[in-house]
Amino acid sequence: MKPQLAKGVRDVSPEDKILKNQVISTLQEVFELYGFPPFETPLLERWETLTAKGGAGQDSDVFKEIFRLTDQGKRKLGLRFDLTVPLARYVALNPSIKLPFKRYEVGRVFRDGPIKLGRYREFWQCDADTIGTKSMLADAEALAVVETSFKKLGLKTFIKVNNRKILNGILNQAGIKDKESAITSIDKLTKIGVEGVSKELIDGGYNKKQIDCIFSLISSKTTLAQLKKLISDEEGKEGLAELQELLLYGRKLGLKTLKFDVSLARGLAYYTGTVFEAFLKKGKIMSSLAGGGRYDNLIGLLGGRDIPAVGFAFGLEPIMDTLRIEGTKTIKTKSQVYIIPLGTVDESLNVASGLRESGISTDFSMGKKGVSKNLQYANSLGIPYTIIIGENELKKKKVLLRDMETGTETLLSVNDVVKKLKK
Amino acid sequence: MKPQLAKGVRDVSPEDKILKNQVISTLQEVFELYGFPPFETPLLERWETLTAKGGAGQDSDVFKEIFRLTDQGKRKLGLRFDLTVPLARYVALNPSIKLPFKRYEVGRVFRDGPIKLGRYREFWQCDADTIGTKSMLADAEALAVVETSFKKLGLKTFIKVNNRKILNGILNQAGIKDKESAITSIDKLTKIGVEGVSKELIDGGYNKKQIDCIFSLISSKTTLAQLKKLISDEEGKEGLAELQELLLYGRKLGLKTLKFDVSLARGLAYYTGTVFEAFLKKGKIMSSLAGGGRYDNLIGLLGGRDIPAVGFAFGLEPIMDTLRIEGTKTIKTKSQVYIIPLGTVDESLNVASGLRESGISTDFSMGKKGVSKNLQYANSLGIPYTIIIGENELKKKKVLLRDMETGTETLLSVNDVVKKLKK
Repeated sequence: MKPQLAKGVRDVSPEDKILKNQVISTLQEVFELYGFPPFETPLLERWETLTAKGGAGQDSDVFKEIFRLTDQGKRKLGLRFDLTVPLARYVALNPSIKLPFKRYEVGRVFRDGPIKLGRYREFWQCDADTIGTKSMLADAEALAVVETSFKKLGLKTFIKVNNRKILNGILNQAGIKDKESAITSIDKLTKIGVEGVSKELIDGGYNKKQIDCIFSLISSKTTLAQLKKLISDEEGKEGLAELQELLLYGRKLGLKTLKFDVSLARGLAYYTGTVFEAFLKKGKIMSSLAGGGRYDNLIGLLGGRDIPAVGFAFGLEPIMDTLRIEGTKTIKTKSQVYIIPLGTVDESLNVASGLRESGISTDFSMGKKGVSKNLQYANSLGIPYTIIIGENELKKKKVLLRDMETGTETLLSVNDVVKKLKK
Repeated sequence: MKPQLAKGVRDVSPEDKILKNQVISTLQEVFELYGFPPFETPLLERWETLTAKGGAGQDSDVFKEIFRLTDQGKRKLGLRFDLTVPLARYVALNPSIKLPFKRYEVGRVFRDGPIKLGRYREFWQCDADTIGTKSMLADAEALAVVETSFKKLGLKTFIKVNNRKILNGILNQAGIKDKESAITSIDKLTKIGVEGVSKELIDGGYNKKQIDCIFSLISSKTTLAQLKKLISDEEGKEGLAELQELLLYGRKLGLKTLKFDVSLARGLAYYTGTVFEAFLKKGKIMSSLAGGGRYDNLIGLLGGRDIPAVGFAFGLEPIMDTLRIEGTKTIKTKSQVYIIPLGTVDESLNVASGLRESGISTDFSMGKKGVSKNLQYANSLGIPYTIIIGENELKKKKVLLRDMETGTETLLSVNDVVKKLKK
């Protein structure tokens, strides 16, 4: 057999997995700081659940990307393609859960789509949602989690914030009927520019006057004060009020990176109010690192009660890529020291135990002969220190600690090794 | 739509997920203490990989339990059924990795089998393996990880240890040809007793004399000293020597819960040397909580170089069940405090920020009216403290901290709240 990976999936090497675990544990820490508990749903869901209205119905882009399978009982199943549909299914299945229901989930999702750079068929999502309240406090908390997380990750980001109702109001004023497809066009503004979006709208049957009306209001430079004067539509006004309340709460929570941007649309059809997206500051590529918004109709569509909700997701892969580009120092191993016994296996095992009991991550030479082969091995793993224990060291009740970066060797007692490595 | 779970899978509630995360993070901590780095393989593997010789070939029990799927390109895929096959595939695919290669992986696996109590179609495994050394030091390290993990989890366990070569030696002496099927029978000893195993062996065509020979040597009471006198077969002697070396290393590592048991067989065909299994001490049900052994041929079979290996797995679900039975205190939430603003949302948000900056997990009332409804909600989530902030408290620059268990309310400054909750 010539072994091969399945198409569109990856192995995660120890070095990458250490970084991934660090990112995940930072996000978990912040989620829990804000009162979101961990939660888990299965990867296997019934086909009917995944393709229900609100999920990936036949007319959705995701529908054809669902991995299908059947179980022994010929039941039709699929692999989940996001974490929102399983959450909605859970809420529908458990009508007695207390609302608001907050939770986060970090896990894999699957899409059998075309493969591009940075796009895989099996990838991770980190979601947090608050189900069961219309309060803008929930939206503000979402923004706070995002800002705090990037701060803790050491990434300088800012968050574009908008409200779908404002966009709807503007489209109402411009006399646009199919707002959903217009929003899909506007969503491409940063990619294809005003010209490109205009062309799409003209192709959609709208006239120059309507398009001028839209772009007189929608630009990343439009201020909230301008819009308050110019928007007369009721839904638009409601959106402005919600946004102002949200920004006020944001200030009270001490948030410093929120930036109103009326051109932010976010593609997904299901958003109903607040939308937001976090980007790297001064990044060469404006890659989106997190995003979310309010979706007050989705949970109801998926079979539960009619329940408002706000949620957001971090892009784990883009965050890891950004950390690497920004030069975040990664480590190849968690091991702090590698023990090389020279004819002293029994005593060296004892030393290893002592170090581990003191909380020092300790690796131990196995079946490698000679000091230099062992040093090469420790070096290839990136372990920062080695300990050599020969008869001479034993006699002195010491060990030889070698700093693998500098090559410096010091004769120390085990206690002193612990003190040095604990720092 | 009437929402339903797929058959044989589960949602994990916040309370259960908190416990699960605690167990996983304890295991991760110990793995890393012993020099095993984290690692990740995909859930999707090529059908040829999963069903290769050494994996789940057509004649294996697992073969018919693999979930099958195809991707857009009509490639045959399957969901992994364990973490060993993907590891072997990784090693085969990356011939330049440095040996010994140590790694742990915690993740989901899938088996489309019959569903019983505690048996699911989607479940978690926690594996650690050392690939590329025959040294008994690796086997001893495996035992140390298991013993240390259970100690940190607060579970009183012991580890039965044996060596397949000893069993093979005994079977050789009894003139048993099909050792694999005999070992499968012996594996059932604790379940069906000597009588049951004897019957299976007689049905297999062996005579009373052979069976007597086996049971004169195989019993959980047989000592190592007895076997050293009675085993003459070369493979058996090799097994005894390996086991003695392993137990010596175990002593040097300070291990205290190892128990030689020549009747321990472990069902899987691929073990070649050391086998071990950890059980709860004095448990009503002798449920296995972890197990593993040496499998020196498997990696080679799966397409890589011929590479010796030793590995083991923790049973995450049995460990969680045992912790619950043993009365381990679980928590329903990570939130330490729930803030109830009474007409003071803006100022209360500020308090929330301050608490979170001090590392206190803080939840915040959203859209719930009145103190009593809020207290009920906080109580249902299991949050230990609430903070009530009304105009009176604001004037005094204090907040009202309520201990939800005792009902005691204290007027404190935010600083004093931090001091109290940090304890």
